[in-house]
Amino acid sequence: MPDDVVLGIDFGGTKIAMGIAGRDGEIRRRLRLSTDAGSGAERVVARALAAARDLLGDRDPVAVGVVSPGIVLPEKILLAPNVPGWERLRLREMVAAEFGSRVAVGTDVKAAALAESRWGALAGADPAVFLSLGTGIAAATLVGGQVLAGANGAAGEIGYNLRGTRETASFATGSAPLEEAVGGRGLGRRASERFGRPVTTAELFALARHDPVAERLVSEALDELATHVANLAIAIDPRRIAVGGGLVRSAAIVLPALRNRLSTAVPFPPELVSARFGQDSALRGAIALASGALDAPAEGGCRYEETLPLP
Amino acid sequence: MPDDVVLGIDFGGTKIAMGIAGRDGEIRRRLRLSTDAGSGAERVVARALAAARDLLGDRDPVAVGVVSPGIVLPEKILLAPNVPGWERLRLREMVAAEFGSRVAVGTDVKAAALAESRWGALAGADPAVFLSLGTGIAAATLVGGQVLAGANGAAGEIGYNLRGTRETASFATGSAPLEEAVGGRGLGRRASERFGRPVTTAELFALARHDPVAERLVSEALDELATHVANLAIAIDPRRIAVGGGLVRSAAIVLPALRNRLSTAVPFPPELVSARFGQDSALRGAIALASGALDAPAEGGCRYEETLPLP
Repeated sequence: MPDDVVLGIDFGGTKIAMGIAGRDGEIRRRLRLSTDAGSGAERVVARALAAARDLLGDRDPVAVGVVSPGIVLPEKILLAPNVPGWERLRLREMVAAEFGSRVAVGTDVKAAALAESRWGALAGADPAVFLSLGTGIAAATLVGGQVLAGANGAAGEIGYNLRGTRETASFATGSAPLEEAVGGRGLGRRASERFGRPVTTAELFALARHDPVAERLVSEALDELATHVANLAIAIDPRRIAVGGGLVRSAAIVLPALRNRLSTAVPFPPELVSARFGQDSALRGAIALASGALDAPAEGGCRYEETLPLP
Repeated sequence: MPDDVVLGIDFGGTKIAMGIAGRDGEIRRRLRLSTDAGSGAERVVARALAAARDLLGDRDPVAVGVVSPGIVLPEKILLAPNVPGWERLRLREMVAAEFGSRVAVGTDVKAAALAESRWGALAGADPAVFLSLGTGIAAATLVGGQVLAGANGAAGEIGYNLRGTRETASFATGSAPLEEAVGGRGLGRRASERFGRPVTTAELFALARHDPVAERLVSEALDELATHVANLAIAIDPRRIAVGGGLVRSAAIVLPALRNRLSTAVPFPPELVSARFGQDSALRGAIALASGALDAPAEGGCRYEETLPLP
């Protein structure tokens, strides 16, 4: 059936993106709506599923892939504090009840890595690393085309990295030290403090071209980030690293800074490229999960998710 | 043939260890000799092979596993500066010429990880990390019982890790910053400077129980090490980490320091245990490689090595 379609849904903190695609991963129809987190997790999902029905028209998807920040388990979602009630959500069950088809759920960044490996900038690279630099900071490692999930689905959550021996903030104190130092939110907050007015990350990078204060903020953040990316590359020895997330809009500044550290610190410096799917990376990831669910022999689910312990 | 034996040889910087084992990995006969690095790589290997012949008596091994520091490729060995000529050594070819059997070559730390996964402290843990803390500092990640080699066989060479943004030493300047800070040689050198006489790492750890200068040196090194181990655990999300290498003799000090950091920094702290094979870890690794070569469908070689690019 060459005209089978899959549905992908990306639940972000502020936006929900969804798309219908063929087996080649190309998006044929798409839709965005605001998350409206305040309405609570169940309502958010119900609205999204209704919108997906509209988008599909009279078709049924042969598989559905759903991604979210956090560690997406069948009966709960860990480390995802943005939407009230999201952590207790039986996301896969709700989606399966609506569509009756195979449903795979997963973490947005890991799914995006899968999409880059299958159709994007990481094709043919093994091992490979997808680096998501935006509000959140996370990485996903691909080995043999499979995402390394980790024992608890938490591999690559490098936003929690310690920045040095004197770091007192940590996961245990409710912090994500690296993410707060170099993620979009932390950068924007420090910039706004420094300039005495609201400054976005994008604006900060633009200012950095001529303003020494902005330049310093940016270069400090990139130094910190580059150190962690270099150490991650030493640990994994990837063939290629693809960078996605909002900071890629400033790729002309970000990539050379990372490349510079990689070239001196890593015995075999990997290629460093921009991810292919940009703003669509998580949605493409959802579609990759759906495609993967079709290939799976069992009841569905992405391969990396199959290794997760069930609660 | 229940009485098949395999031969394992561990070429260390100062000692060569070899052993004959059954398919269960248990060592039946063993021998140690000094490396005598000054005589050059070819002589070192020739002496070892003659000694192995003696050890074997009139038997022929069904497979041979050989490990060495550095990245062991069929036609050269990278990042292994200890023995003159070692980098240009066709190690596998020399061993195969002597024994005619299947020969697998590999990096000592990665092979040790394989042995711990197969027969030791990492059995049943997935993913898992083997941490080698001695003169050298390195790690090996196991995914599905396979060692992550990396694109160039250099995964886990965390001795090269940068310690922070202000680090100017690096692989490119001939340094291994983390190894120099917390490895046995660096620790011993700093201790000797501080005390004005030769102090070994073992002695330093003993002194640290009552001498504040020694205590400070040790705790600074363990703080640094623990930060890197925590960040590695965040990246991999291992079920278990096993610690091997000479520093394990001070496990009562080292393990609690690492565990303490892991418990606060990592979302899902892994178990942390001593490796099973201690001083035998690399030799057991060589034996694990030999066993793996028997399982391999092709001409031999350990699985992680098969992913290496040939020169």
